[in-house]
Amino acid sequence: MTTETARLEAFSDGVFAIAITLLILEIKVPSSETVGLGAELARQWPSYLAFFISFAFIGIMWINHHRMFTHIKRADDTLLLLNLALMFGVCVIPFTTALLAAQLGHPGARTAVVAYDSAYLGIAVFFNLLWRHAASRGGHLLADNVNREDAEKITQQYNYGPLAYGIAIALAWVSITASLLINLVLACFFAIPPHVAVRRAPGRGKHEPSS
Amino acid sequence: MTTETARLEAFSDGVFAIAITLLILEIKVPSSETVGLGAELARQWPSYLAFFISFAFIGIMWINHHRMFTHIKRADDTLLLLNLALMFGVCVIPFTTALLAAQLGHPGARTAVVAYDSAYLGIAVFFNLLWRHAASRGGHLLADNVNREDAEKITQQYNYGPLAYGIAIALAWVSITASLLINLVLACFFAIPPHVAVRRAPGRGKHEPSS
Amino acid sequence: MTTETARLEAFSDGVFAIAITLLILEIKVPSSETVGLGAELARQWPSYLAFFISFAFIGIMWINHHRMFTHIKRADDTLLLLNLALMFGVCVIPFTTALLAAQLGHPGARTAVVAYDSAYLGIAVFFNLLWRHAASRGGHLLADNVNREDAEKITQQYNYGPLAYGIAIALAWVSITASLLINLVLACFFAIPPHVAVRRAPGRGKHEPSS
Amino acid sequence: MTTETARLEAFSDGVFAIAITLLILEIKVPSSETVGLGAELARQWPSYLAFFISFAFIGIMWINHHRMFTHIKRADDTLLLLNLALMFGVCVIPFTTALLAAQLGHPGARTAVVAYDSAYLGIAVFFNLLWRHAASRGGHLLADNVNREDAEKITQQYNYGPLAYGIAIALAWVSITASLLINLVLACFFAIPPHVAVRRAPGRGKHEPSS
Repeated sequence: MTTETARLEAFSDGVFAIAITLLILEIKVPSSETVGLGAELARQWPSYLAFFISFAFIGIMWINHHRMFTHIKRADDTLLLLNLALMFGVCVIPFTTALLAAQLGHPGARTAVVAYDSAYLGIAVFFNLLWRHAASRGGHLLADNVNREDAEKITQQYNYGPLAYGIAIALAWVSITASLLINLVLACFFAIPPHVAVRRAPGRGKHEPSS
Repeated sequence: MTTETARLEAFSDGVFAIAITLLILEIKVPSSETVGLGAELARQWPSYLAFFISFAFIGIMWINHHRMFTHIKRADDTLLLLNLALMFGVCVIPFTTALLAAQLGHPGARTAVVAYDSAYLGIAVFFNLLWRHAASRGGHLLADNVNREDAEKITQQYNYGPLAYGIAIALAWVSITASLLINLVLACFFAIPPHVAVRRAPGRGKHEPSS
Repeated sequence: MTTETARLEAFSDGVFAIAITLLILEIKVPSSETVGLGAELARQWPSYLAFFISFAFIGIMWINHHRMFTHIKRADDTLLLLNLALMFGVCVIPFTTALLAAQLGHPGARTAVVAYDSAYLGIAVFFNLLWRHAASRGGHLLADNVNREDAEKITQQYNYGPLAYGIAIALAWVSITASLLINLVLACFFAIPPHVAVRRAPGRGKHEPSS
Repeated sequence: MTTETARLEAFSDGVFAIAITLLILEIKVPSSETVGLGAELARQWPSYLAFFISFAFIGIMWINHHRMFTHIKRADDTLLLLNLALMFGVCVIPFTTALLAAQLGHPGARTAVVAYDSAYLGIAVFFNLLWRHAASRGGHLLADNVNREDAEKITQQYNYGPLAYGIAIALAWVSITASLLINLVLACFFAIPPHVAVRRAPGRGKHEPSS
């Protein structure tokens, strides 16, 4: 049984909106007894950094979800379950973000970054599985008038996700800063629309006319 | 007075999305003074387990709500109230989940599991009542073109819910692990679409042609 | 400028859904060191009672909002502001509920009940103002095909709200139990559809034929 | 690629609704041991004030977002990102509100007010950027039948935002009360519809016939 995607999108929008808003609850407010509120606020930089990266990640993930479902017009049971797995990843982010904020600059920072990046890796994997399922069997869940090349560019762009987040995890052992930087770079990369991010659709050789 | 179901679905989607996202707030972040963050995180397994089961339950419940309302096209006052009772159950889950997470491995575990399963039992009962009300009087709230056999398969599948969650509660006195395992099995069972989960519509004898 | 009400309803649904789900966060989970979890849970009855009444109030308020906007089809600036005032009341409920739960059975109970009922009184007043504005000037914001008698029955039913919640506040000085009971009775009264709750539309004398 | 704005609006409605409802979580409930609950509640006036201003700001911001998207009918990638930046500001408000509530009447009040107003300044800037982007290139993202003068009045009204919130920040060094008063006045100003707030569209001289 396939259905419309309207409610799937509504439910996902809800989860995205809540997860992105809950992030702020993890930033603690210095008590009124504090002397030097400015300095106290400045000391909380790890919370702001973790908040900012997670906000960018979830926000840009929402943009990509939106882009995907411009093309996906039907939902089957597998798609519902894959989307649920994706939402699982989104719901975990406020926890890994709070963990990172609490540990940056402390001995547990490396473990926290690995946990943080792992959530993103899982999400990247399920984004791929969701899209590939929708685009499989000749795009059986895609809109009938979908541009095949556009769809393939999405496939290509998403391909980079799991690999890149895998690298981010590995980098955590070398440099925590580098691992977090990769996260920001990836957020920017996935903010770029597929037709700009990816020049050439796969399976098209150099000499093939692009027409 | 019967109305469209659009707003009922929007309100329900909101409650589902919020309840499923709030679950994560119950998982505590180890403080930065912790030595051995990895071990500290591992010690929180009851929180992760409770989170996972509850996420699966609410997520799959949403899928079933979505399936039901593919068929239900009109809402009357009784349906609104039954749906509200269902939402009551959903809203309680973050509490019973946190209770279970706090008590697993402690003397209160049995009581916590009984409370946890009871919320699911209540939800299963109201899912049945909601669906049966919609399908009653010749399906007076269902879509006009609904397939009668599909509707009966949903009825049959939901029939198992109250009984099965009742068994889960009883099992808590024998084995807490078994009771939680039943929960996971039931989540999988209700994730399966009715036409796969239930082979034969009720009231159809062996010799009757399926025409 | 008048607009469609779709987004007003979506925003309101969001606020209703979040407020009703946040209620549960106020119920504390007994710690795992507790001996006798059952007794500990039972001792929290004020939290459950406050949760239940507030859940019923918000839920049934949503049903009434839904009923009103079955008739209201256009929004002007005044309607947006009145609806915002209504949402203010809804957002305050998790606070007054937590206050009531913390104080029931303690010296501050009377003050807490008055605060609790006052939020409901304010909401009842704005419900009336919102509906009366929409129904004013010959129902300038109502659907064109609205049944005038149905609309008047809503007007009549809502009329009881401010008075009844005013009585509930006054009753708090006599008996806290009575004041809370009134709340439950009122939730039931507003759950009943207007055409059942109110027999006769206003302005229709006994001898006038109902045509 | 331009798309419909339905999902952008749904996601934004979700963030608005959640942020506005989360505000209440920052108001603490006095414990049941308190003697003189009334006095205890009265002492929390900074929390109520901060809550009220922030509620008014977010609520009226929602009304303006709603007004803007009555005219905006298409979304491109830049619009999605600008809207995301706007949502970033909205998500920060519960934090700056709690900060203000904790510090009013304490030495850190000035710093807290500056942080509070800065969030509003940032939001005002992105509101302008979002609208100007949509209205740019002959209104390429606006509805085809949009009234050009209406659009220009919105442009003019929003123009006041960044300047006014900049003044509010500067005023914090002179008087904290004045700075917060400005916030309330601005909330009222932006609650007024553009065609009332702004008399004359820009670029129209005195002698030009209004045709």
